[in-house]
Amino acid sequence: MSTITTASPLTERYGAHQPDDVAPLTDAIAGILRHRTVRAYLTDPLDDTVLPTLVAAAQSAPTSSNMQFWSVVAVTDPARKDRLAALAGGQAHVRQAPLLLVWVADLARARAIGAADGTHLAGADYLDSTVVAFVDAALAAQNAVVAAESLGLGTVYIGALRHHPEQVAAELGLPEGTVAVVGLVVGHPDPAGGERVKPRLPQAAVLHHETYDLAVQAPYVDAYEDLIAPFYREEGLAQSWRRRVVDRLAVPGPERGHAHLHSALAARGLPSR
Amino acid sequence: MSTITTASPLTERYGAHQPDDVAPLTDAIAGILRHRTVRAYLTDPLDDTVLPTLVAAAQSAPTSSNMQFWSVVAVTDPARKDRLAALAGGQAHVRQAPLLLVWVADLARARAIGAADGTHLAGADYLDSTVVAFVDAALAAQNAVVAAESLGLGTVYIGALRHHPEQVAAELGLPEGTVAVVGLVVGHPDPAGGERVKPRLPQAAVLHHETYDLAVQAPYVDAYEDLIAPFYREEGLAQSWRRRVVDRLAVPGPERGHAHLHSALAARGLPSR
Repeated sequence: MSTITTASPLTERYGAHQPDDVAPLTDAIAGILRHRTVRAYLTDPLDDTVLPTLVAAAQSAPTSSNMQFWSVVAVTDPARKDRLAALAGGQAHVRQAPLLLVWVADLARARAIGAADGTHLAGADYLDSTVVAFVDAALAAQNAVVAAESLGLGTVYIGALRHHPEQVAAELGLPEGTVAVVGLVVGHPDPAGGERVKPRLPQAAVLHHETYDLAVQAPYVDAYEDLIAPFYREEGLAQSWRRRVVDRLAVPGPERGHAHLHSALAARGLPSR
Repeated sequence: MSTITTASPLTERYGAHQPDDVAPLTDAIAGILRHRTVRAYLTDPLDDTVLPTLVAAAQSAPTSSNMQFWSVVAVTDPARKDRLAALAGGQAHVRQAPLLLVWVADLARARAIGAADGTHLAGADYLDSTVVAFVDAALAAQNAVVAAESLGLGTVYIGALRHHPEQVAAELGLPEGTVAVVGLVVGHPDPAGGERVKPRLPQAAVLHHETYDLAVQAPYVDAYEDLIAPFYREEGLAQSWRRRVVDRLAVPGPERGHAHLHSALAARGLPSR
């Protein structure tokens, strides 16, 4: 196991609230801790070896009972990326970067197997199957992120693809029983991008021992306000994390122009009953 | 970037269908490709530095709009692990290994912030918020898996905790607005365990270019039957992957004694409308 000795990524992540004592940072851990969201890309294409490597990493993630209820669509066509960028609310990095991976919750492959067997897969119509597919797609995608970053590439997830599931499905030719879980932009970071490691809540706010404690979190959430404010200020955003949480959840998505996800999943053949 | 030159994990993962040409395997990628599910553990405790390191890795994962809608409960108490093992259908490795991390979709922290602000967070009652919480919890958990394995530890996810959300919540003192997404056992692998890298579907079955193609997958799913059969045979399981997919989805979870997840989420304060 190779290790590095600097603890600086932890300082960037936690400020004064960094954990006292951590394990020797393996290359994998050091890379994970250094993660930053990249929104400025060079237009250079990726080496042909990147895509199969990222997919191998993704397929090496655990998947519930080896069901493999996910697929991925690799989009490099500039016109298609433009249209998907528009569906995601005009995120320029989708256009700019050479690759958009769309991670798909996929019960269509299973249903095709069921059809060939003459068996109706009634379980595929329940929320627990959709949840397995979404979780497994996320596990796969995150392995691809870690792999890409270890190759010096940058990434950013595009959750906004869930705001318009039908239009995204039409663009990607997704059959019934499949839906986009999340997009992932992959490319060479523009060195002028200047992205920083984003501070997170102190561990004491998210890590519980034996049982969950809501009350104990409050002072650590308070402390986080001071840690994150400079980060948001540099990004030109409202500086209170608490305010951002309230603003995000005060108005349901459908009242902000997003599809009603429960209905949209049903329309995609994932009824979530 | 450190690299290794052996491509053997790809052979174990894909057999004859391994990708022709992959990027140089960084330590992180090599570790990811070597992932195997560990179900036999030594009872040795973990070093105290492991937990904060895994949580730092988890918190370094992307989270939608920095909302951090997840928490994690670290369970080491043997009696509690016993009870959770029973809720997960009697999985002995939950008892055997020193640590069970329960990853929690958490809208309770946000609701507490909303309450302090005098704002009802109507958006928290919609499926899209629950999905964000589940996906973000999964991304975090997978970073912890990669980090743990890079330290030489073994892991196995416990999805069965979703089969009894209310009982798991009672055991962990989870408040309204939170639910267990998945458990993760962490420990020192028993060298006698003999786990192998599990073969996956050929990339041609899960990776699509520009648009999704269901028909093209069929021969690769066929080919996978031959690749996975010896693996299942060694585990004493039915040897057809297609049969296992059909058996898993033919009967809805609630008819197999699992909670009805949609109702259970609503009962947990995650109504998923």
